[in-house]
Amino acid sequence: MSSIWNQARRAARMNPSIIREILKVTEKPGILSMAGGLPSAETFPVDALKAACDEVLSKNAKEALQYAASEGFGPLREWVAQRMASLGMTVSPDQVLITSGSQQGLDLVGKILCDAGAPVAVETPTYLGALQAFTPYEPNFVSLASDEQGVDPAEFARLPHDAPGTRFAYLLPNYQNPTGRVMSLERRQAVMAAAKAANVPVIEDNPYGDLWFDEPPLPALASFWPEGTIYLGSFSKVLTPGFRLGFIIAPSELYPKLLQAKQAADLHTPGFNQRVVYEVVKNGFLDEHVPLIRARYKANRDAMAEGLKKHLPPGCVWQSPKGGMFFWIRLPEGLNAMDLLPKAVDAGIAFVPGAAFYAQNPDPRTLRLSFVTLTPPQIEEGVAILGKVLRDALDNGAQPTP
Amino acid sequence: MSSIWNQARRAARMNPSIIREILKVTEKPGILSMAGGLPSAETFPVDALKAACDEVLSKNAKEALQYAASEGFGPLREWVAQRMASLGMTVSPDQVLITSGSQQGLDLVGKILCDAGAPVAVETPTYLGALQAFTPYEPNFVSLASDEQGVDPAEFARLPHDAPGTRFAYLLPNYQNPTGRVMSLERRQAVMAAAKAANVPVIEDNPYGDLWFDEPPLPALASFWPEGTIYLGSFSKVLTPGFRLGFIIAPSELYPKLLQAKQAADLHTPGFNQRVVYEVVKNGFLDEHVPLIRARYKANRDAMAEGLKKHLPPGCVWQSPKGGMFFWIRLPEGLNAMDLLPKAVDAGIAFVPGAAFYAQNPDPRTLRLSFVTLTPPQIEEGVAILGKVLRDALDNGAQPTP
Repeated sequence: MSSIWNQARRAARMNPSIIREILKVTEKPGILSMAGGLPSAETFPVDALKAACDEVLSKNAKEALQYAASEGFGPLREWVAQRMASLGMTVSPDQVLITSGSQQGLDLVGKILCDAGAPVAVETPTYLGALQAFTPYEPNFVSLASDEQGVDPAEFARLPHDAPGTRFAYLLPNYQNPTGRVMSLERRQAVMAAAKAANVPVIEDNPYGDLWFDEPPLPALASFWPEGTIYLGSFSKVLTPGFRLGFIIAPSELYPKLLQAKQAADLHTPGFNQRVVYEVVKNGFLDEHVPLIRARYKANRDAMAEGLKKHLPPGCVWQSPKGGMFFWIRLPEGLNAMDLLPKAVDAGIAFVPGAAFYAQNPDPRTLRLSFVTLTPPQIEEGVAILGKVLRDALDNGAQPTP
Repeated sequence: MSSIWNQARRAARMNPSIIREILKVTEKPGILSMAGGLPSAETFPVDALKAACDEVLSKNAKEALQYAASEGFGPLREWVAQRMASLGMTVSPDQVLITSGSQQGLDLVGKILCDAGAPVAVETPTYLGALQAFTPYEPNFVSLASDEQGVDPAEFARLPHDAPGTRFAYLLPNYQNPTGRVMSLERRQAVMAAAKAANVPVIEDNPYGDLWFDEPPLPALASFWPEGTIYLGSFSKVLTPGFRLGFIIAPSELYPKLLQAKQAADLHTPGFNQRVVYEVVKNGFLDEHVPLIRARYKANRDAMAEGLKKHLPPGCVWQSPKGGMFFWIRLPEGLNAMDLLPKAVDAGIAFVPGAAFYAQNPDPRTLRLSFVTLTPPQIEEGVAILGKVLRDALDNGAQPTP
């Protein structure tokens, strides 16, 4: 940076994300990409949205096009509050803040809760976008030991309590991005009891909860400790990400702070978008629509599970996810996912190396595969190519990875 | 705050804004409100937006409803870049970042340039929303002495230069909110020369520039020092605020930092909204539409100018604005705008006390009047009521204000 702009310490931390560079590499035509985190565009309810746009602009254009309340559109807040009952939560509409995607929920949480140097606890690995959202507020990330069910409850007692105490633990209980793992009921109870005992608030991020395949979702973490949990939800995976609509459910004492942060960030989420989405969902549309997404994604999950079993060389380890959008693979010793990516792209496929998802000590043997944007035959073909790339690397004498 | 959430220093700073409370008071039915900063809903191009929504969802639904680039929609970025030539700026589309309203531009600037305790210079008075946007990043506000043409150029030489040096000066050259004032060509040249000499970057906020009444806008501040200026623009005042669309034009060396901050904040501005607005503006729509807004606002400005001359008691001071949406009134000694507001609301009108717009040392004798949401007869009536409230207060023995 030249001398005009070079003074800010914050700017020095804002470096282009590695994932950005990775996705650029994988955007070549003809690539079977399992890299992106995009929902399938085939699931977007175009006709319902078109009818709703027309309805809103015919009946409430002046209100929809004017500045609006920072809290969000009242009827949509009521709809969200009622819907949370299915996850065991009792929510008042006054606790609901509509955000510009759930990514903004992460930003607002960082804006009011992260102080420079104060600890923030995250799962190992965790959602990259959350690390990016919190980073500008200069927290000190602490990685919580995690297994196939998520975070280890015993970790909470080990978190720093002296000033500056641990601000919060950021947890993704359902079909986590990137690992696809889900927390069992027993784990949820144990984690929330441990968090409460340690007095460490929880940020619960649940963008994938509606995308279950085998059994409906378990109670939200927030249901076990409502006054100590901020819940983040999203319309991106069940309707469309292009409208950028998410929501925060916050304890009453914290709501005014988040509201002020929201007003400072962008005044309010587009009123037009909120009214259109409310028009679409108000009469039970999602109860018909989401099962169609689930059926599609489940078939894709099955195709990828079968393909991986058939094509990956011995030594690769993975779980078949019970929902969501991702498989998480750990490669045999000697392989490095980042080093393999250019070879994979040359061979016609793409994935995301898992190293990007760690706050500390990245595991270079991990990678993430999305199964939702390709068709089952494409998935079979892509996974076969991945298997060949891995076997070639092993045959060419892989070096031990650190 | 209870012990669960009470650790964050940031949260302690996020207090509900005074203006929020004021606007709540003034939202009573039957009030002639001159308080809000809303554009006139009569100017929203409903039919053009409806046709564009239909066009986008008929032809490009999958792209418009999917996740999109953090930079913004390419054709809209090109359109913005070209349009800046009319303000004397030479802009590449690569310098344009589409934001969720220009309020988000302020947030992103704070996010990359404000460090805790570092000085940030603002006009006296200045846009309240900018103070709110920067505050979470804990800057040390420095108020620049300003007159009826904006900031005094001599102030730049007096700004702190030792570490932590002054991060930037935030300036509104056209029909400033709240004062309505405009910087002359000579003042622009002198200010930018002084900023450059002092090595203090400039944030130029220009939401009102298209709303000129008497003569077209002068060259942008950025045209005098492109590599030292970040320019913020908005579609809210010329099209609709309900789509939440604005933009940043940044020097190339700073663009990647702002882009990363944008991605962290909300991934991207709604792709659907960007495509719809591009569809509306791409063939010169604003060249036909904005003159209609200007003519309407100019007639309202004239009505308010006449009403104020007729109804305000001696000792009140104001300038007639050459564009924008606001008159700024300084009351006679002894009157306090905040104290008068409840009386004004009881009498059937509302304004915003000016004290909210100062970073330091608020002037309690100031108030802001919007002239764009009422009709000329309503303006005449509202200003007559204001005059009566002021005369009553003076007759009842106003106390000297500090």
